[in-house]
Amino acid sequence: MKKKQVHNFNPGPSALPLCVLEEIQESFLDYQYSGMSIVEISHRSRWFEGVLNDAVDRLKRLLKLDERFHVLFLQGGASLQFCMVPMNFLKAGDTADYVNTGLWSAKAIKEAQLQGKSIHIVASSEDRDFSYIPQKIPYNEGSTYLHFTSNNTIRGTQFREFPESAHIPLVADMSSDIMSRPFDVSPFGFLYGGIQKNLGAAGACLAIIRKDFLERVPETLPTMLSYRTHASKNSLFNTPACFSIYTAQLVLKWLEETIGGLEQMASINQKKAQMLYGVLDESGFYNPTAEPDSRSLMNITFRLSIQNLEAKFIQEAEMSGFYGLKGHRSVGGCRVSIYNAVTISSVAALVDFMKTFERKYG
Amino acid sequence: MKKKQVHNFNPGPSALPLCVLEEIQESFLDYQYSGMSIVEISHRSRWFEGVLNDAVDRLKRLLKLDERFHVLFLQGGASLQFCMVPMNFLKAGDTADYVNTGLWSAKAIKEAQLQGKSIHIVASSEDRDFSYIPQKIPYNEGSTYLHFTSNNTIRGTQFREFPESAHIPLVADMSSDIMSRPFDVSPFGFLYGGIQKNLGAAGACLAIIRKDFLERVPETLPTMLSYRTHASKNSLFNTPACFSIYTAQLVLKWLEETIGGLEQMASINQKKAQMLYGVLDESGFYNPTAEPDSRSLMNITFRLSIQNLEAKFIQEAEMSGFYGLKGHRSVGGCRVSIYNAVTISSVAALVDFMKTFERKYG
Repeated sequence: MKKKQVHNFNPGPSALPLCVLEEIQESFLDYQYSGMSIVEISHRSRWFEGVLNDAVDRLKRLLKLDERFHVLFLQGGASLQFCMVPMNFLKAGDTADYVNTGLWSAKAIKEAQLQGKSIHIVASSEDRDFSYIPQKIPYNEGSTYLHFTSNNTIRGTQFREFPESAHIPLVADMSSDIMSRPFDVSPFGFLYGGIQKNLGAAGACLAIIRKDFLERVPETLPTMLSYRTHASKNSLFNTPACFSIYTAQLVLKWLEETIGGLEQMASINQKKAQMLYGVLDESGFYNPTAEPDSRSLMNITFRLSIQNLEAKFIQEAEMSGFYGLKGHRSVGGCRVSIYNAVTISSVAALVDFMKTFERKYG
Repeated sequence: MKKKQVHNFNPGPSALPLCVLEEIQESFLDYQYSGMSIVEISHRSRWFEGVLNDAVDRLKRLLKLDERFHVLFLQGGASLQFCMVPMNFLKAGDTADYVNTGLWSAKAIKEAQLQGKSIHIVASSEDRDFSYIPQKIPYNEGSTYLHFTSNNTIRGTQFREFPESAHIPLVADMSSDIMSRPFDVSPFGFLYGGIQKNLGAAGACLAIIRKDFLERVPETLPTMLSYRTHASKNSLFNTPACFSIYTAQLVLKWLEETIGGLEQMASINQKKAQMLYGVLDESGFYNPTAEPDSRSLMNITFRLSIQNLEAKFIQEAEMSGFYGLKGHRSVGGCRVSIYNAVTISSVAALVDFMKTFERKYG
């Protein structure tokens, strides 16, 4: 069955590269002449070991990671890491700094507080409805880490530059912009993100941990909740989400070999975002919700100046083949998610649709 | 690409029904005329809601579950439940009973002990190298639950009848035999199992929880580690392992509509096991490791009387298209895993191969 032409702007799970989907389909009954499907082979087989190691190697090359870092594929999504991060890295007497830029940051903060950990919210954009990214974050000397959310899917904001924290290690939830642009991993002790936006099928969570940060992990944690377990077993302590890791391997291959790396990916992502912000900025009909210097290149959020037209906008868009434009249920409005696999031509088609809709109802 | 003819006896991830694999492949680029792949649709879309609810409904029908039970699809496999079970169900002052029938039971026990929970090992088969299932288990009055492993993949043993525990709720890891036979869920407070053996692609863990057992869950747990969270959100608190749940839905549909239910499945599974135990019992060349009244219908474990022929047996089998026959690395020997999707004809082919191998080398 061929793919019907739709434009997928889902906030995650979201579009994957068509060539990746086609490769999965083509070999689905017989992975590498094994006679078995990728979902039927053992996670301890040479085939799956090949998948996992290739995914890790590609990720290391793309991010220019050196030997100081482990790359892991975990389960439970970023949501499980919200509690595992303070559990693993904050001993009694330790404190950590958190930046609050919206719902996902708040969830990370809540999970640290639930455990009675000592944390400080050192910056927040709540005063202006999370429409911006705080600058010059006043971290505390002596903090174990400084936690932030690199991209806020709901509010459509994104850190352009990561916080300056001198020697305090950064920890970040990068679920919605990891692998969308190059960045320097050296200031990070730990970073993590669900793979279902830029990297593959939902079910696995990418985590990158600096080896010296691993030494903070207490010996007494439940085995599955210790990053030490997963690092020492190369993500194979127990059966992982094999198929999700396989999709990540193929997306990373596409990123490296077809796109050509993170610089090229970032430039495509910038172009897509500029096309959409261009429409918003030219128009009094569509109003972007994020402040200009904090705008996300991944999630473009906006309201219609006639707010009761929003439902019609989303509905007409869907009837024209544009999916996933509804804003998050906690804020309403509209949102266009343009992760790595969303093509420039899909964005161009949406731009046309938006202009037509504005002429019709504006 | 068509499927090469191999016989997949992997211990998990393992064989899935060919018709399920074909359906996934056929619709992989375009799920239900959405124009999107199943891995590209939102977990909050009507499509995925349909997948999840259908999986839950089929499971409830197949197991004849009434309104007292929640059916959940979690992440982290059975391994994460080993720590979540005592964390959720044992308050200070509570105790629980555990039965030790091998490595997986021991892991469950270890995770309770790591948390300092008060548990009693009320029965163990360690005295005879875990080759049997203890009978008449002496549970403690006042225990919160009695935990056991229904099938032991490594040792090839299985509970024929579940422990009698009067009013003490049973809790079981059923990773390797759930949905292989009918059973009465009423005595259970909680049961769980990774889906990668009888139910689908690795990445999701099935959990069934009795609603009154949910009341035991403390309010203060990390959100993702509380069964209350997942039950109250119908497994959609965060992005689940969507593709794995989709495979489970299709396998449950096959079980219900093609096989005809759990009675029929059990009778096929019995037949397959009888064919293999028949060869073992007729022969002095192959020696089954489990005691006859404790034999698993899922994992048939044996040694060759000439043990240095085992590597040759496994190698010649693989060259003849029989995969996954190596015993678990902790015990060695041979193991044939014949989960639901392994066909009678695959077992018949293996029986022929084993007889030929015995004639050649016996």
